[in-house]
Amino acid sequence: MRMYDIIEKKRDGLALSDEEIRFFVDGYTDGSIPDYQASALCMAIFFRGMNDREISVLTDAMAHSGDMIDLSRFGTLSADKHSTGGVGDKTSLIVMPIVAALGAKVAKMTGRGLGHTGGTVDKLESIPGYQIALDSERFLTQVEDIGISLVGQSGNLTPADKKLYALRDVTATVNSIPLITSSIMSKKLAAGAHNIVLDVKVGSGAFMKTPADGRALAEKMVSIGKLCGRNMTAVLTNMDVPLGHNIGNALEVREAVAVLKGESRGDLREVCIALASNLIRMVFDLTEEEARRRVIDALGSGAAFSKLKEWISAQGGDTRCLDDPSLFPATAFAYEIQSPVNGYIRKMDAERIGITSVMLGAGRETKDAPIDYSAGIVLCKKVGERVSAGETLATLYTNRESALAEAAEHYLTALTFGETPPEPQPLIYEIVR
Amino acid sequence: MRMYDIIEKKRDGLALSDEEIRFFVDGYTDGSIPDYQASALCMAIFFRGMNDREISVLTDAMAHSGDMIDLSRFGTLSADKHSTGGVGDKTSLIVMPIVAALGAKVAKMTGRGLGHTGGTVDKLESIPGYQIALDSERFLTQVEDIGISLVGQSGNLTPADKKLYALRDVTATVNSIPLITSSIMSKKLAAGAHNIVLDVKVGSGAFMKTPADGRALAEKMVSIGKLCGRNMTAVLTNMDVPLGHNIGNALEVREAVAVLKGESRGDLREVCIALASNLIRMVFDLTEEEARRRVIDALGSGAAFSKLKEWISAQGGDTRCLDDPSLFPATAFAYEIQSPVNGYIRKMDAERIGITSVMLGAGRETKDAPIDYSAGIVLCKKVGERVSAGETLATLYTNRESALAEAAEHYLTALTFGETPPEPQPLIYEIVR
Repeated sequence: MRMYDIIEKKRDGLALSDEEIRFFVDGYTDGSIPDYQASALCMAIFFRGMNDREISVLTDAMAHSGDMIDLSRFGTLSADKHSTGGVGDKTSLIVMPIVAALGAKVAKMTGRGLGHTGGTVDKLESIPGYQIALDSERFLTQVEDIGISLVGQSGNLTPADKKLYALRDVTATVNSIPLITSSIMSKKLAAGAHNIVLDVKVGSGAFMKTPADGRALAEKMVSIGKLCGRNMTAVLTNMDVPLGHNIGNALEVREAVAVLKGESRGDLREVCIALASNLIRMVFDLTEEEARRRVIDALGSGAAFSKLKEWISAQGGDTRCLDDPSLFPATAFAYEIQSPVNGYIRKMDAERIGITSVMLGAGRETKDAPIDYSAGIVLCKKVGERVSAGETLATLYTNRESALAEAAEHYLTALTFGETPPEPQPLIYEIVR
Repeated sequence: MRMYDIIEKKRDGLALSDEEIRFFVDGYTDGSIPDYQASALCMAIFFRGMNDREISVLTDAMAHSGDMIDLSRFGTLSADKHSTGGVGDKTSLIVMPIVAALGAKVAKMTGRGLGHTGGTVDKLESIPGYQIALDSERFLTQVEDIGISLVGQSGNLTPADKKLYALRDVTATVNSIPLITSSIMSKKLAAGAHNIVLDVKVGSGAFMKTPADGRALAEKMVSIGKLCGRNMTAVLTNMDVPLGHNIGNALEVREAVAVLKGESRGDLREVCIALASNLIRMVFDLTEEEARRRVIDALGSGAAFSKLKEWISAQGGDTRCLDDPSLFPATAFAYEIQSPVNGYIRKMDAERIGITSVMLGAGRETKDAPIDYSAGIVLCKKVGERVSAGETLATLYTNRESALAEAAEHYLTALTFGETPPEPQPLIYEIVR
């Protein structure tokens, strides 16, 4: 078998055989197939696509290119969640303790943030003492004991995807549904959970800019996950606007705590209820209504917040911060951005707001850059709200005084004002099963 | 400027700017742009194409990536010919002395063969004593003195094309009209001639399998050459069947001599007349009829044969071989292939016949393999001819006795017999100006 023939076959619009796909993934992972042939194939896939059989074999081959986490001891109770990435997205910190409180088993590996979207690892590390690295036996034992553990990615998970994603990122071949699907789903398969809910973000702050694009990706990921034997649901959620009000690691933990304590209503809570209830529905084979009722109960009874504390405590984190969020370290500087006009906020560019938070120190511009857990933004006014000139739109928190002026200016460029309120947008576009 | 953005722009179907194309060619040549980005761009060009401005800038940038041969001392008299490659194609050995005898200036660099098609360098080196390497001053002085010199490629001609072609060859991106055009035409521009005739081969033994494909390539090369300021004509010729009767280096020189002496008629002579007269027509601005008349005169008068001898002698070759071809070294083995049937030859697979000659030692299977100048095939019967069982179809010449049986069998698989003669095919499909 020759890589040349595989590239030519896909270039000419033919479907690759299972053997050809596995030959490519194995050869690219072990280095016997060079980058320049892999990038030519990715570009041919960009133009020609792949059918569901091809994508599921590609996904399976990439999943098996490294370690596979074995969660079989949890039977069909294991539950995982994946977000395609957004600004202010702290849903894992809320959804996972809810479903664990309801009896699902959450053994979740999670990543660091890069660019304008944050990572769950960074958010958890903003809790003093939280141990993100557990050895695999302690990780699984904790899940047996209390139903939940979240750790950083370790071991050799999906090396084929790591290598191929890095290549796609520099050859303009990221934006291909078969390649996005296989990248995301290979990681989810390797992570081992039987029930998976996908939060597919749609809008200015997300990779998928329109509901139609988001739906196409969601449908593909759901069907490939099912072909690979997992229970799958995708929720298409709005990312035209940052989710919730807080952006930045410790600030997001504080907002997650507020939702779990029942102190915060609004878009963040609604998205979390949708994600958690769809996960619970699959785990326990419930009706939609019953699943939603159990989730709302877990929030109202305090069971979900108790599970959060139990989890954080089991991993060494200081739970006093959760009871009293004022104990989180504060930044040296806080700056209130005032509205320059009277009117309505018609649009917010979520990506620009994410970049503003990076300027304040809350995110990484390069892979190994340090991060300031306390930095970030609290939004006071969001899309659709009426503002008066001089009213506070947002507060910037940072230890970099020199960054404040530019960050404030950048934040304002993310907003569009008008004299009338905008059409309301749906928060949840669609559930794909 | 970033290579990523250039790939993305072409991927999305937009035309690249002149600066973007030159940035790519310069960066790929100097190594600052890696292979994996170049191959992704080539695949995007395969799918999206390029407009004439893009192709002419790409061609010009590749031509200027290395040395440019300066033939300005010959004004508008310089003449060159390029063939897209076929089996038994010895036309350069005939066309170039004809046009030199008629006053054109032929300063031609030529290549070695690889695979099933032969190279002019190898054919010339089969003449004892012929010096293929001349320093550039001696090369040009010889053209001033006698009007013709053919040497092997030397110096640093079109390094961008060399590197890019090698990459395309392993990434299934050879077969793209913009990329083929810029590859061929960049070499022709760097080689310096003002008048260029292209022999675009069409058929089973050629890269272009149909007249429509050949015409598309021919039209593109002609228009790009003109955009770059050269006189251009392309002749589409049939390569369903090997050209002439002899395949193999010394055997092809012998057949070229026979045509130049007026001893051989048929397809080879006809193609050479078409190529030479189109070249002369451009050089001296003649009518078609006048150009053709002069070419036939040069053949009939012996002027073209005299020019061949003058040229070969000037480069140290033994011209006694030309007067008496029996002086060429003979092979140890000659094997006559007999017809297994009574009937007509309906088809010959020129590529298979070319491969048969490589099996006999006449060509190279890898770049640095040695070559047996005396080995090859003489075809006794070609397409359309009637044969009787036991009649000789071809004679194989080789010094590799062990190769004979397999080569003979392979030769027979290249032929299709039938009870009726096939439809006659045109020898020259079209002239593109």
